[in-house]
Amino acid sequence: MLVLFTDFGLAGPYVGQMKAVLHRDAPGVPVVDLFADAPRFDPMASAYLLAAYAAGFSAGTVFLCVVDPGVGGDRAPMALEADGRWFVGPDNGLLVIAARRQPASTWFHVAWRPDRLSASFHGRDLFAPVAARLATGRTGCLEPWRGARTGAEWPDDIPRVVYVDSYGNAMTGLRAALLPADARLAVAGTSLPRARTFSDVVEGEAFWYENANGLAEIAVNCGSAAERFGLRIGTPVGW
Amino acid sequence: MLVLFTDFGLAGPYVGQMKAVLHRDAPGVPVVDLFADAPRFDPMASAYLLAAYAAGFSAGTVFLCVVDPGVGGDRAPMALEADGRWFVGPDNGLLVIAARRQPASTWFHVAWRPDRLSASFHGRDLFAPVAARLATGRTGCLEPWRGARTGAEWPDDIPRVVYVDSYGNAMTGLRAALLPADARLAVAGTSLPRARTFSDVVEGEAFWYENANGLAEIAVNCGSAAERFGLRIGTPVGW
Amino acid sequence: MLVLFTDFGLAGPYVGQMKAVLHRDAPGVPVVDLFADAPRFDPMASAYLLAAYAAGFSAGTVFLCVVDPGVGGDRAPMALEADGRWFVGPDNGLLVIAARRQPASTWFHVAWRPDRLSASFHGRDLFAPVAARLATGRTGCLEPWRGARTGAEWPDDIPRVVYVDSYGNAMTGLRAALLPADARLAVAGTSLPRARTFSDVVEGEAFWYENANGLAEIAVNCGSAAERFGLRIGTPVGW
Repeated sequence: MLVLFTDFGLAGPYVGQMKAVLHRDAPGVPVVDLFADAPRFDPMASAYLLAAYAAGFSAGTVFLCVVDPGVGGDRAPMALEADGRWFVGPDNGLLVIAARRQPASTWFHVAWRPDRLSASFHGRDLFAPVAARLATGRTGCLEPWRGARTGAEWPDDIPRVVYVDSYGNAMTGLRAALLPADARLAVAGTSLPRARTFSDVVEGEAFWYENANGLAEIAVNCGSAAERFGLRIGTPVGW
Repeated sequence: MLVLFTDFGLAGPYVGQMKAVLHRDAPGVPVVDLFADAPRFDPMASAYLLAAYAAGFSAGTVFLCVVDPGVGGDRAPMALEADGRWFVGPDNGLLVIAARRQPASTWFHVAWRPDRLSASFHGRDLFAPVAARLATGRTGCLEPWRGARTGAEWPDDIPRVVYVDSYGNAMTGLRAALLPADARLAVAGTSLPRARTFSDVVEGEAFWYENANGLAEIAVNCGSAAERFGLRIGTPVGW
Repeated sequence: MLVLFTDFGLAGPYVGQMKAVLHRDAPGVPVVDLFADAPRFDPMASAYLLAAYAAGFSAGTVFLCVVDPGVGGDRAPMALEADGRWFVGPDNGLLVIAARRQPASTWFHVAWRPDRLSASFHGRDLFAPVAARLATGRTGCLEPWRGARTGAEWPDDIPRVVYVDSYGNAMTGLRAALLPADARLAVAGTSLPRARTFSDVVEGEAFWYENANGLAEIAVNCGSAAERFGLRIGTPVGW
């Protein structure tokens, strides 16, 4: 399975152009959109989101990851093999948290280059063809590498909002399992109790909970936590 | 074919995470998005929309239906077999109108439970695996059931707006075939004549028509009826 | 491969309903979304966008093109064979620029009609079944035709904005290869220099560049050119 993680947005041709390459170069392999709205121009927030949401996929999955504000510059294209899954993306920190959460992972440099490489769309021209190759067992496009140059000093978890979904729920970069069972989360001048899930609180009540991918998430039952508390990507969270 | 009907919104990972489960558990079965923006937290409006839009699909189709504000609570997961098509979703009324429009339908309770069931995302953990099983002929996950507990008293049609599309056209919960041929629709203090379709009226003119799925729909040629008349889900309609 | 180019918007059931037809009538053929947000009600701007974005696809691709404000009226349905690729859509100019950029192209009239043709959704009822037939080698639905009646007088390139993407980058209807290498673009009272790509200018700087599909595009590094300069589809561009 090929899984897309980008900040391209839902509109426009970019995701579709990458999928066309994947269908052409890896025929028969299912392609799934995970995020098309990852934190824009923000490889760091994206890295924590990717690590949490990649966890549920089995060996053989290839993640095509493009949050790449430096496209066309000198950041390197790289690949990561972690627990039987592959990640392809730019060396800007995007993959480092996913790598760190695996017992064993191996970094590669993407040595292959296409005949025609646009200056602005390496997702289509470089990363997608490489992902398709890896999804069909062709690893000749890679070279051993010493590892990512960016993000090595980033913490294991980050006390900030990393994503706001369309309901207005705000995911943090904190894994809930690391927090005390009775922890309250401090955000935007308020302190929120923990709940198991939405239906455990009354309509309109704010709380935090362990979301379905293990992140501490700030929510309001049948309402928007983002609107009520003014949350956005980067908002600090304490506990 | 597997068909998705949810209120998850277009953004975010939720639809993609369900699709990943479907591709894993029902490999080779095409997956189609019907609605990702069904009326949010509103199983009743969603029920009339689903009934109208499910009608065009042939036997063998499995509809994965998740408008589920009570997720994690005590509402039951259920399945419906109607005219060779399957529907999977929560017992909150979402499936009752689709059932009622079929000459014969059979209700089932979902007895199967996954090894790991999150509190907040039964779409991914429970409903999607069940839909995949039904799409591949495996019905052992179901038990006979006496029927839906919610929605039995809902009317056959509902005189309200049930969906506003991106053009600003407002679909109602009324089947056009039940209205007199010369009926006018009363909405937001105005009265609208019927037309065959957009190109039959001048640009900017408001009208109602039988949409391509049989619903009475309020529209403006090359304009937004929702903006002009302040229409939203739940706005009453008379005739 | 089947490729979708429509102005239906991302929300709602319309794209999904067309895909359901494609999967039913052309099983096993991959379906890719290129644009669901082509310039709405604007076949002319859409024609230049389609021509630029169709260029990267190989022979055998079938483009299902629906920007069709005249649906249900007397505009004819047509098909175009150009360099081994097929285009299906209404005779309102949408396909003329794509045709003109091919060394050889042949026009056809769509003679086939479905058993049931709605007044408002020919995309689902007529164009999608025809596209599926062409994608599986069945051309009996077509008749020879003298050619498109609309758009023959349109210029080869158009000095206007034809699309604004979710980053706020504004694509023009001008092919960059036709502009002098040192040309500046005049837009909204300002004059912009050319750059190779985003990473070649400082953050917040405005420029124009040849985008990954050959169009002159107005952009701001890590910002929105559309917001800064008030650009929208139709905004004139000079050089």
